[in-house]
Amino acid sequence: MNSRALVFDAYGTLFDVHSVAQRCESFWPGEGARISQLWRAKQLEWTWQRSLMRRYVPFSRITRDALDYACAALRIPLDEEKANRLLQEYRALALYPDVRGAFPALRKARHKLAILTNGSPDLIEPLVAQSGLAFDAVLSVDEVKIFKPAPDVYQHAVKRLGAAPGEIDFVSSNCWDALGAKSFGFRVWWINRSGAPIDALGFSPDGILGGLGELPGALAQ
Amino acid sequence: MNSRALVFDAYGTLFDVHSVAQRCESFWPGEGARISQLWRAKQLEWTWQRSLMRRYVPFSRITRDALDYACAALRIPLDEEKANRLLQEYRALALYPDVRGAFPALRKARHKLAILTNGSPDLIEPLVAQSGLAFDAVLSVDEVKIFKPAPDVYQHAVKRLGAAPGEIDFVSSNCWDALGAKSFGFRVWWINRSGAPIDALGFSPDGILGGLGELPGALAQ
Repeated sequence: MNSRALVFDAYGTLFDVHSVAQRCESFWPGEGARISQLWRAKQLEWTWQRSLMRRYVPFSRITRDALDYACAALRIPLDEEKANRLLQEYRALALYPDVRGAFPALRKARHKLAILTNGSPDLIEPLVAQSGLAFDAVLSVDEVKIFKPAPDVYQHAVKRLGAAPGEIDFVSSNCWDALGAKSFGFRVWWINRSGAPIDALGFSPDGILGGLGELPGALAQ
Repeated sequence: MNSRALVFDAYGTLFDVHSVAQRCESFWPGEGARISQLWRAKQLEWTWQRSLMRRYVPFSRITRDALDYACAALRIPLDEEKANRLLQEYRALALYPDVRGAFPALRKARHKLAILTNGSPDLIEPLVAQSGLAFDAVLSVDEVKIFKPAPDVYQHAVKRLGAAPGEIDFVSSNCWDALGAKSFGFRVWWINRSGAPIDALGFSPDGILGGLGELPGALAQ
């Protein structure tokens, strides 16, 4: 095994969060998109705001709070059973099809493979277990009590993987996460499945890929 | 003058940003709401992300970058003239009607009156000048190079106003700003003109008001 490590974001990069929106739609027909959009927006906002305030709580807590907020703001009734079912989706998300396809080639390249996620262990551990994929490390921001894109998070990967920043390839579909990692010093690959513009955060990714399927070829160059 | 200070957020609290959306609508009929919503969302996201990344740039720069992003994402053409006109709106926003009404009573209470804003001096100084309101201090995060709700920002007000955190009343319509200030130690008043749910950031405001008109009475209690 060489010293380079390949580190993935989880939500939206390896795991497709679309099923959460589908579950919302099944509970509240016609409202699923509005609910899941506001839910996701608040979930992310609060990771940033709590990090700046230095008032960390685990991602599972923020995710539940944001669901409560979205339903309250849209005046949609939410009971415990529905809330629990929706949170449970986060532990059972499907992999993007291109992930399973690319994984054997990435394994064969003998990189150390890891996940670096905002997700708290109570969410990410069952999710990875049910995926059937094997990683050398599953690292959560919960170990440093601050969310991405704080440099503390990327530094944590350096420490835990025993690799220098320049030895780490980082892969995320969240542009701000990719650029936070670039600002820190990783080589980064932005997975831009939707053709979004790049975030104006003062950095550019080393490569922009349409999906994980392009990653083995990009890394080999 | 007593030692207490009354500190206001600017955008959305004293100044109504609605005219920016109106100008968008006049440039791109039928698209104004979508553009201004995405513009505002990216503008705020980048203040938080850049703060966490420790890659501050002034709010006027972020505001322009976010406008470019919104138009690119929605595939709407933007030329320099339109961009400049839209940025110019930020220097000429109207006061909410309840601000001008409440101001004489707040003055009379002999508080020190100040603004604490994400806005950079190139935006906020002409805006305050054209409002006709007189403040004892107009403080910008530009002096500390990090955005709200980082505690550094609220600490800056303490330092510049020469008041202890407990001597400062802080007023914001942005719930996360009010709660960031509460987390820091100010007494805070959340102006909730739209009846939104409270953000789940681990704190509650000392008071929730429907508008600035209620502030003199609330402070007198």
